[in-house]
Formats: sequence, C-alpha cells, structure tokens
Amino acid sequence: MLSKAEIARLRSLRDKKHRDELGLFAIEGEKVVAELLTTGHPLCELYVTAGWQSAAQTKSDQPRPRIISSEEMARISHFPTPSSILAVGRIERGILESASLNRGLTLLLDGIQDAGNLGTLLRIADWFAFDRVVASTDSVDLFNQKVIHASMGSFSRVQFFNADLAAALVQTTAPVLGCDLIGDDVHTLPPLRDAVIAIGSEGRGLSPAVRARVTRFVTIPRFGSAESLNAAVAAAIVCDNLRRTAGPSDL
Amino acid sequence: MLSKAEIARLRSLRDKKHRDELGLFAIEGEKVVAELLTTGHPLCELYVTAGWQSAAQTKSDQPRPRIISSEEMARISHFPTPSSILAVGRIERGILESASLNRGLTLLLDGIQDAGNLGTLLRIADWFAFDRVVASTDSVDLFNQKVIHASMGSFSRVQFFNADLAAALVQTTAPVLGCDLIGDDVHTLPPLRDAVIAIGSEGRGLSPAVRARVTRFVTIPRFGSAESLNAAVAAAIVCDNLRRTAGPSDL
Repeated sequence: MLSKAEIARLRSLRDKKHRDELGLFAIEGEKVVAELLTTGHPLCELYVTAGWQSAAQTKSDQPRPRIISSEEMARISHFPTPSSILAVGRIERGILESASLNRGLTLLLDGIQDAGNLGTLLRIADWFAFDRVVASTDSVDLFNQKVIHASMGSFSRVQFFNADLAAALVQTTAPVLGCDLIGDDVHTLPPLRDAVIAIGSEGRGLSPAVRARVTRFVTIPRFGSAESLNAAVAAAIVCDNLRRTAGPSDL
Repeated sequence: MLSKAEIARLRSLRDKKHRDELGLFAIEGEKVVAELLTTGHPLCELYVTAGWQSAAQTKSDQPRPRIISSEEMARISHFPTPSSILAVGRIERGILESASLNRGLTLLLDGIQDAGNLGTLLRIADWFAFDRVVASTDSVDLFNQKVIHASMGSFSRVQFFNADLAAALVQTTAPVLGCDLIGDDVHTLPPLRDAVIAIGSEGRGLSPAVRARVTRFVTIPRFGSAESLNAAVAAAIVCDNLRRTAGPSDL
C-alpha cells in the first residue's frame, strides 16, 4: 500500500519545479525502463504491478521492485493508460566546461520547446556519436517523461548539458555551424572532426545571441514548397552530411 | 447559436469513422487554417470567435465565417485549449494509378501509426518535391488533425494516396529502395530520377509483403549506439541523399 503522501510525491514529479525540488524524475513504460535498467542507469525506486515481467531486472545494484495494485499505479501514473512499471531516478545535471566545445562534435540546441523533438534530437546525437548535446536554459527539460520516451534509450547514453549558449560559445575556437534557411549548401561541408552544430527552434530559429557566434551558416537545399523542416529532421540531415565527410572521429 | 445537432456533428469529426461517413474533416488553429485558406484548399464551413483576425480570409470562393461564442468553440473544439477558428473541409481521396509509381519520386509509407510522424513525412516530401506519398491502408488517417498540424501546410500541397502497397508495387519498374538497418550505404546511392523510397514503421519496419518488392535495401551509416532512427528522420536523410545525387527532377 502506498500512503497518500507517497502518491502525492510521485504524482508531483510530472512538474519540473517539483522534480528540481526533490532531485528526482519519474519514468514509465516496460520498454524504456528496461532500457534504463539494461544500461545501468541509476534508479532509486521501482513500482510495478503484478503484470510486470521482471526479465529486464538484471543489475544487482538496482532497487527492488515494490509491487502495487493497478489502482495505485493508475493514481501515481502520469498517463491516462498506465504501464506495469514506474521508476524513479535521481536527477544528475552535468556542468558544461566551455573548453569542451572545442573538441569533438557538439549538437547545440537553441530554444527547443517540443519534448518529442528534444527526445528525437538525443537519439540523433546518439546515432551519429556526437560527443555532447548542449541545450539553452529555455529548452524543454531533459527529465520530462516525453523527452525520455522519444529518446528511446539515448537519454542515458548522451552527454547532456543545459547552458547559456552565447556565454558557452564565447571562447569556442571550433567552427560553429548554424542551421538556417540561408547559408552554404550542407552538401559542400568540408570534413570537420571538431564542430558545433547549432539548431534553433522551429518558430524562431537561432536566437540573435547565438547567431552572433556562428562562424558559418549552412542550409539544406530545398526542391519543393515546404517553408521549413522540423528541427530534428534538419539536425539529422546536417549530422549525416557532417559524418559523411568526417567519418568516425576516433579513427 | 449552434444547435445541439451541429455541435454533435462537429465533435464527431475527431473520429475517422465519422469523418468517412460525412466526408468531412475539421481543422483548427489560426496558423494552419490561414495556410489552407492561402493555398486555396477547399473548405466548406468556418467557425470563428470574436478574437479571430480575418486577414487570411482572401479567397472569395471560401465560405463566410460564422461567428460563435467562446463557449460554443470550446464545445466543438477537439482540443482542451481551443483556438479562435475551426474549419471544415471536404475529404477528397485520390485513387492511385499503380503505373504512376514508375515516374518521379514516391515516398511509400508502410504502417506509419504516429500522426506527428506522418505530418512530418508530408513536410519532408514537400521540401524535397516528391511527386507523391503513398501510405498503406493501416497507416494513421491523413485527415487526423494532428497529421495536418504537423505537416505545416504541406498537407494541401502533397499528392497523397492510401493503397495496398504490395499490390501497387507489383508492376513497378522503378527501383524500390527499402530503408532498413542492413543495406547499402545511403551515401553510395546512384543518381535516380525515378524511385520509390519505402519507409516502415518504427516498431516493425517494412512488412514482409513490401520487403518482397524492394529492389535494393539502403541503410544510414551509424556511428554511435542508438538502435534506430525515427521513421521521419530516416526518410529525410534518404531523401537528402537521393536529391544530392539526382538534383531537381525537372531540370
């Protein structure tokens, strides 16, 4: 049995404010929790209903699952249709060292508000083995459940930081490529092992403070009539072109 | 004043079954309706609240907006936070001629269930000037509001068909490129002015019936650890690579 206070605490984790106060986040769903357990992501509480299959529970340092009723799960779940597991993890936020932007590949996200987009961008950074993702402080929160879900496990593999982007870029010596509707054809990108790829929000594009730090604007050739591409789609095309020319950075 | 029957009819358009029965779909939001009005997409009813700005209403053949109260809009809206406009359009579904797949570029979508993904795919097809999008009959409905929203206006510009994909491909002589985790490196694609790009659902990939018609599997080189890419992201990268080598098909 969960106490009323426990239920209220778990429910409160849907809000960033409460997540930050408690230093905890909640994540639900058999598949995504199994992925976090498999990658050894530190979780501190596990709530499961009788329907849960425990196959994924392999690490001895993970918490023991606490069995609750379906009614209790429905009360603590953040979703209308709860799954059989809700995990609670400790929030750990890294602090970006600006100098790190000079080495390797950085995906810089300026004002991404859509949770699904941020999750997809983490997955793209993971696929293309980017060294880090740095998001502006006005971006959607990394520990939002929808972000974690859309990242399909990449959430626990990608180095992620929130930072004041313009300040972080002040001393960057690596090229800063800004994705924009006007710029050099992305197909002509030279090989770059160290680079910052800056992606703006769909509504507003890159902010003036970040634009001021861009060393080269790049654009994706358009053949038809769409006004723009989704931010994650644009990022993926730029990453593919960069990797096409650069190859694996550790070879 | 809207009658109870009118309210019930407008509310019912959120379900595909009712949309098909009435041959109508509803679409809300200042921006997206303005886009449809601008492109001259045929709309047959317009409901607006006093807050609506009529600047976009330029075509004389569009229906006159009917002014309703905010309370009425809240009742007919499909969203918890209604906008100032709800438009009703007539559903027109094209019938695919299989022979058309032999000419130009076709984006073939096999079992895409996510509305946001389908909308994003329409936008990608529009950006890269694909000649048509053909979706399997088990895909999410084109006239789902979320699809139209995510397409950002491309909904009214892209030629879209639902079809039995395997049957449609039987007589296709153009190359059918299947996007998969194993296949030829997409960076080595030869120039193709006529091609079908087949994209599967994220969960299941391409169906066996479509796989049997694929003439060449292509894959996006992976550098990191993500298991897969989002279907729309993968499609965009393949389209960019195809366009990179092929150039505008009408030049």
